[in-house]
Amino acid sequence: MNPFINKTPVLTSGTVNKLLNGNIFFKCENFQKVGAFKARGATNALMQLDDRILEKGVATHSSGNHAQALSWAASLRECRAFIVMPSNSSRVKVDAVNSYGGKIMFCDPTLEARESTLAMVMKETGASEIHPYNDLRIITGQATAALELIEEIPDLDIIIAPVGGGGLLSGTALATHYFSLRTKVIAAEPEQANDAFLSFMNKRFIPSVNPDTVADGLRTSLGSITFPIIMKYVDQIITVSEPSIIQAMRFIWERMKILIEPSSAVPVAALLEGKIDTDDKRIGVIISGGNVDLDHLPWLL
Amino acid sequence: MNPFINKTPVLTSGTVNKLLNGNIFFKCENFQKVGAFKARGATNALMQLDDRILEKGVATHSSGNHAQALSWAASLRECRAFIVMPSNSSRVKVDAVNSYGGKIMFCDPTLEARESTLAMVMKETGASEIHPYNDLRIITGQATAALELIEEIPDLDIIIAPVGGGGLLSGTALATHYFSLRTKVIAAEPEQANDAFLSFMNKRFIPSVNPDTVADGLRTSLGSITFPIIMKYVDQIITVSEPSIIQAMRFIWERMKILIEPSSAVPVAALLEGKIDTDDKRIGVIISGGNVDLDHLPWLL
Repeated sequence: MNPFINKTPVLTSGTVNKLLNGNIFFKCENFQKVGAFKARGATNALMQLDDRILEKGVATHSSGNHAQALSWAASLRECRAFIVMPSNSSRVKVDAVNSYGGKIMFCDPTLEARESTLAMVMKETGASEIHPYNDLRIITGQATAALELIEEIPDLDIIIAPVGGGGLLSGTALATHYFSLRTKVIAAEPEQANDAFLSFMNKRFIPSVNPDTVADGLRTSLGSITFPIIMKYVDQIITVSEPSIIQAMRFIWERMKILIEPSSAVPVAALLEGKIDTDDKRIGVIISGGNVDLDHLPWLL
Repeated sequence: MNPFINKTPVLTSGTVNKLLNGNIFFKCENFQKVGAFKARGATNALMQLDDRILEKGVATHSSGNHAQALSWAASLRECRAFIVMPSNSSRVKVDAVNSYGGKIMFCDPTLEARESTLAMVMKETGASEIHPYNDLRIITGQATAALELIEEIPDLDIIIAPVGGGGLLSGTALATHYFSLRTKVIAAEPEQANDAFLSFMNKRFIPSVNPDTVADGLRTSLGSITFPIIMKYVDQIITVSEPSIIQAMRFIWERMKILIEPSSAVPVAALLEGKIDTDDKRIGVIISGGNVDLDHLPWLL
């Protein structure tokens, strides 16, 4: 379909299906380019920029998968990507951004420093900001993961996705609304980073304060674009504990022999905790990525 | 095809192909039942036993994947599996055999104790021994992995498999000889357990003495049935160092997001070390299994 993006496989597990007495379909974005769904949004955004804008490059602040995805997508379009990263970013992540050709600017590890450094970089270079999630081009790019899943596995009762800033979740909810109306969309979120849950329940935006979760992709707050989409098209948000996330991650590694990152284990934890009725249900799970620091596995810390 | 065995996927990696300037096809037996190719041989052997023999059960000594595979295959035929395991077997392996319903007998961790305990168990129970590799029913079962690979990916220049006792390698060589005659068969073995290499070069059986390798599936000696098949149908045996095995294992985890066990990394190490001409070649690699103790990863020891 798209010449740049992998059509990732949908995997099933006899063990998981037996355990939950349902049919669970894992959409494996851990096998996506750069190891995460973020490649979809970044490519979609970059493909819509004209040459005049591309000439000056693109920029973002990110310590995670979006930094890699933007660097990689920029290399496809032969433009520069300026990535502002906190100075305490892990070596693995810095190396990954470097390997895709991103130009890294380090800053103090605070949101203020990240934003002011990004503003400075944009002013100096004329680069355009590509926000990791609060951008419709990003959201519609991420939507293609659920779209592929719906096309391959029809008649799903439920699709579950993790929620951090809400880019993947918004895309998933929109794709499901337009292409599989009867399918419910459930989000899963760490209890210790439950801003989306609180915002959803209170029907007003509540930012993430000191999120402390192993799911490093889910520490961000919702955005002004993602929050209303989520309010309108998501049916439920479920939170899960830290031990439950780590246990779910290890369970998938051991039983399915695939590497999933902690953020991907959050929806799995919601299933394994029994917080979703799986009985005879057909359930799609978006496995968001597989970028893990193999020197620091959470069950060994 | 077979109702009991998974037709495992053949995966490719853009990164690996680019690095080696070839086309590498990974036959992923880590996604096989019980997490390893051993399920093929065990099922094939068990399906050939008549009810009178099954009534008394089957037996083996093994601390590894064969123990799990035999226990699992026996449960399919509703017969008992007596598994003699050394008392120092890891908790993970003992739990796995238990989970498939195998009946475990512990013994001292020496080959003598394993053999004498097995003889005693067989005498007491009347169970039939199913040897992990030196058995044509096992070898022809293991052969189906290469057969599936050849059917899916024709015109391979080379197929590489790891060698321990030689069951997988014999099966791979026979399948290749009969169904893809022009394909060369190369075996990969740890330098520190190089009995197959020495036997192959000296054209006489040389047993494994104090093998000391992270590739726990490859510590055994060849057998009286596997050795002649290997002499006749295998083109080359390549040995690789321990650091190279660990590096190859981690490389596949990081780049392909799949769990492979150290034994599976041995052929990958042969490729990454540049010991095989990969230039424009189509190369099949048998990834033998994915059973790893996640509490003791080799790069963290």
